[in-house]
Amino acid sequence: MSDDPKPIVLLAPGLGGLRQLFENSYRLIEPPASGVVVGEGRGARAFITVGNRPMEAEIAALPDLGLVAVVGSGYEAIDVAGLRARGVEVTHSPGANHEDVADHAVGLLIAEVRQLVAGDRRVRAGDWTKDRHPASTRSIRTLKVGIVGLGAIGLAIAERLRPFGCPIAWWGPHPKPGAAYPRTDTLLKLAEESDVLMLAHRADDSNRGLIDAEVIAALGPRGVLVNIARGSAVDEDALIAALRNGRLGGATLDVFQDEPTPAERWRDVPNVVLTPHTAGGAEASLAAMTRMVAENLRRFFAGEPLANPVPPAA
Amino acid sequence: MSDDPKPIVLLAPGLGGLRQLFENSYRLIEPPASGVVVGEGRGARAFITVGNRPMEAEIAALPDLGLVAVVGSGYEAIDVAGLRARGVEVTHSPGANHEDVADHAVGLLIAEVRQLVAGDRRVRAGDWTKDRHPASTRSIRTLKVGIVGLGAIGLAIAERLRPFGCPIAWWGPHPKPGAAYPRTDTLLKLAEESDVLMLAHRADDSNRGLIDAEVIAALGPRGVLVNIARGSAVDEDALIAALRNGRLGGATLDVFQDEPTPAERWRDVPNVVLTPHTAGGAEASLAAMTRMVAENLRRFFAGEPLANPVPPAA
Repeated sequence: MSDDPKPIVLLAPGLGGLRQLFENSYRLIEPPASGVVVGEGRGARAFITVGNRPMEAEIAALPDLGLVAVVGSGYEAIDVAGLRARGVEVTHSPGANHEDVADHAVGLLIAEVRQLVAGDRRVRAGDWTKDRHPASTRSIRTLKVGIVGLGAIGLAIAERLRPFGCPIAWWGPHPKPGAAYPRTDTLLKLAEESDVLMLAHRADDSNRGLIDAEVIAALGPRGVLVNIARGSAVDEDALIAALRNGRLGGATLDVFQDEPTPAERWRDVPNVVLTPHTAGGAEASLAAMTRMVAENLRRFFAGEPLANPVPPAA
Repeated sequence: MSDDPKPIVLLAPGLGGLRQLFENSYRLIEPPASGVVVGEGRGARAFITVGNRPMEAEIAALPDLGLVAVVGSGYEAIDVAGLRARGVEVTHSPGANHEDVADHAVGLLIAEVRQLVAGDRRVRAGDWTKDRHPASTRSIRTLKVGIVGLGAIGLAIAERLRPFGCPIAWWGPHPKPGAAYPRTDTLLKLAEESDVLMLAHRADDSNRGLIDAEVIAALGPRGVLVNIARGSAVDEDALIAALRNGRLGGATLDVFQDEPTPAERWRDVPNVVLTPHTAGGAEASLAAMTRMVAENLRRFFAGEPLANPVPPAA
């Protein structure tokens, strides 16, 4: 195949679904999940990957690499400074999936509070009988919702929840003059005052483990945590301990400390709804994100300025 | 216990959760699910029940019955004319649960389209691996939603879906001048033009089996049916056949032809999310409905006019 004139592009494990979008223009190589890049893959000049999985082993094996194109907005696992120091540019695809992520977040909130997943399990187990009707649940409109981070995703969540009648507040490190929702002074206060805490902030080194045992305790035995941001934002061991002993009411997570999260980690943890990092994985978002990736690849190989380089470090 | 001065009230099987609300005022008897009323239960003057389960056997065994108080809005399984002919009044609790039902309906829609239940099952089965990331789903905002019945529940669904960006239309037998959403001429046309058909109409004899094989075929291989109205509205055998052979894309149901629905009926039916008739079973709704039941019982035993008699037959 060495007479194939198309440039070689590496595709991170798990992104095989994008193959058809790029294979007309590039010779795509998908290394195994172990991260070893061998053979012609080592000739890749560009690498399409995700932002929350370290790719140092793969990247170190690519002497001709010039572009890391991240599918998605976040890129916290990518060593941007190190890559730039060796002349590799990094692009991402921001502002493309906030609507789908917010849809998923609201769905998870309803699924957890109104027991949709537990109810489905119950029907399928034959555990719904005339004599034992399921217990009542809380009503969504009686829940105070606290949103961590009022960026594009946080705002989209708030807008969707508004007609449900939930009182909404938020916290983020920086006040937003003119915001339509009240900001509390601290995260701890937001957790104390909320029935549901929804994480919608950008994850980076500054807020790793932001949701620690103290915040979880403040959310309390009736409180529900919704995380569609990043697993690194939560002390997951503390979360599991609090769910097990009833110090937290429930949690619904699309993102995890390690992904894929091991099934056995959640086996007997009560009151959790778990999805496999699919909040941003809906068609409209993927189409918008892959359009950006494609445009950045095109510009890279044409020697033009990139469309979506990640911002310089603050 | 015959010296207990409290009036005897019969509580339908499965409504034991309401016991504590009424036991201070009444001597509550809960017959077994078989429907046989024996002993002092036969002295009941009032019967608290639900509207979608035939209770003729129980009712026939109650010579002193004067009131059937239905928890909920619908009462299609209650023989109102027959009861009135023997001097028994029927009350219901209307307008109390449309917000909770609409919340549940929107949650089911998102759960089905964004694969929340399937995703949870996948994570728990250890079927999320680095090499096999879940396939993408459709984006909610790309789905045309058709609502059958623009009453309190249908309107509440439409209001909640509006910020999600879904185009919304509806059908019902009677035009509603000034409605904020366009009405299609026929149900069949609504099904043809919709990606999601949400049933939110009142179920009665006039619309039994309204969603038949023809409507299901019109909704089509990518279409999703959401039913939080009544199981009697759907030809459930036709629905299951269409799901099995791919002529319908998916369905999410809170109500069934027979309740509780047998688990084995759904064992290998693809793309369904099932909840055990809990859409209206949230605390705010139950509180409002039981307040109405309590007030009707009080008036009945005080000889005052009832607050919520069901309307005369049309």
